[in-house]
Amino acid sequence: MQAALQEALTATSHAVERVLEPILAVPPGSEARVVEAMRYAVFSGGKRLRPFLVLASANLFDVDRKQALRVAAAIECVHCYSLVHDDLPAMDDDDLRRGKPTLHKAFDEATAILAGDALLTLAFEILASEETHGDPMIRLELIKSLAHASGHQGMVGGQMIDIRAGEGGSMDEAAVCRLQQMKTGALISFSAEAGAIMGHAGKKARHSLQGYARDLGLAFQIADDLLDVEGTPEETGKATGKDADAGKATLVSLMGVERARRQAGLLADQAIAHLAEFDERASLLRAVAHFAINRRT
Amino acid sequence: MQAALQEALTATSHAVERVLEPILAVPPGSEARVVEAMRYAVFSGGKRLRPFLVLASANLFDVDRKQALRVAAAIECVHCYSLVHDDLPAMDDDDLRRGKPTLHKAFDEATAILAGDALLTLAFEILASEETHGDPMIRLELIKSLAHASGHQGMVGGQMIDIRAGEGGSMDEAAVCRLQQMKTGALISFSAEAGAIMGHAGKKARHSLQGYARDLGLAFQIADDLLDVEGTPEETGKATGKDADAGKATLVSLMGVERARRQAGLLADQAIAHLAEFDERASLLRAVAHFAINRRT
Repeated sequence: MQAALQEALTATSHAVERVLEPILAVPPGSEARVVEAMRYAVFSGGKRLRPFLVLASANLFDVDRKQALRVAAAIECVHCYSLVHDDLPAMDDDDLRRGKPTLHKAFDEATAILAGDALLTLAFEILASEETHGDPMIRLELIKSLAHASGHQGMVGGQMIDIRAGEGGSMDEAAVCRLQQMKTGALISFSAEAGAIMGHAGKKARHSLQGYARDLGLAFQIADDLLDVEGTPEETGKATGKDADAGKATLVSLMGVERARRQAGLLADQAIAHLAEFDERASLLRAVAHFAINRRT
Repeated sequence: MQAALQEALTATSHAVERVLEPILAVPPGSEARVVEAMRYAVFSGGKRLRPFLVLASANLFDVDRKQALRVAAAIECVHCYSLVHDDLPAMDDDDLRRGKPTLHKAFDEATAILAGDALLTLAFEILASEETHGDPMIRLELIKSLAHASGHQGMVGGQMIDIRAGEGGSMDEAAVCRLQQMKTGALISFSAEAGAIMGHAGKKARHSLQGYARDLGLAFQIADDLLDVEGTPEETGKATGKDADAGKATLVSLMGVERARRQAGLLADQAIAHLAEFDERASLLRAVAHFAINRRT
């Protein structure tokens, strides 16, 4: 199953890049630089977890794959924008991302700010297009959900909490869980729900996928925090040990490595349990829950 | 007429703030800081030119004022986000905006980046809501147009060109016009067109409003450049003489003060000529064209 998953992740990555390639064609004017920066951010060999979740959930409801890929591409634009802005000197000040210089290192800070802004904007432009779904109400629901997941009530709000947590003050496990649910969980949840939205799925199926994604997202985050403690920059393609250096509370620092690893395993099992109503078409969603906690990058 | 215009601009400003007040209610968690920063950016006493254009164009087509105000608020969020990001140290590095410390001075850079991101996201969330317009296709067209006007093909692209122009290389009048059309013109055009979109206006009326807004936007920009040369920080509420210090080509530096002033006057007349088909309901749109070139702030 893990081989099939790897294959699916790779196929997803290529397919999303094929969608974005013509959309991010470099124009002739000197605004070309911001498009080149957007391309650098997007064509960067990420895991494409969010696009994968969109395609896998869309597959449960017989959604047209071409349309699901556009939603996947839009969400990946939002994810990549958030990484570009998070890496900025005024934020996490990271020099390395996926083994390459971060965008503001490869270009410059102004271009990184603008490229992030443009990727966020592009995501909504993609979702609004009729190529993305024939039903206008579905497109609007996708736009609303994406905005809610990524704005001040979601990802940006979570990033704000994270920054303030780094400035001192102590957080308990509940507070860290809430932070993670906003900072990374909301967009992961939307990714898993997007297929259900596109497929006009019923409340029960949507609820199940939300539960799955909530647990998966947290398991994924704990695995990330474990890698920050135990991984090497060679494995992860970015600086490690940053949370501890910054004195940031994570579930790993609060629970200890052993309990955190057990907790991640429990969350992965729990995520899979939410998928009970789906048949073997959900097998890749089950496999990714195992992958989330066993990966080394 | 100028008194009626001032009254309308003030009323617009208050009405837009009343729309945004509940949407930007400060939450209890520590993500509150980013919402406070969004409020600082938005409740800042700008001229509200773009919201005014939305309301004035909506008025031509009997659009519900409450709905037009939501579109106006969304556009103002995008305008304010662009100012916040443009003011950052990595961009224009401005300390003063509308007579107050810029957002990153009043808060900090990380919060300013996040608040800008969240305002951009919020704009799309507002437009996607059914409170904004009963017709889903109209909401989607507003979203598409806003994304196009503000992304890499519009405002962000223009800002990128502007930054590169400041790094050397010479621009002629045509290149500066294209830059301005993207950087500020596209959002101003969309503002004037938004009422027509909301009111299901015909092609001819939309075309006229586009022409009006194109000329108005450029006249406004020349007036801005003239103020940068001739105004004082006390009048404009921001640093002046910046373009010359940065060695940036503007229409004023290329044409000289006298020719630029005449050109702005011609553009204002031309803008008004585009409104010939509209009756006295367009009188405020005509008045704002005069205001654009005669203002001191």
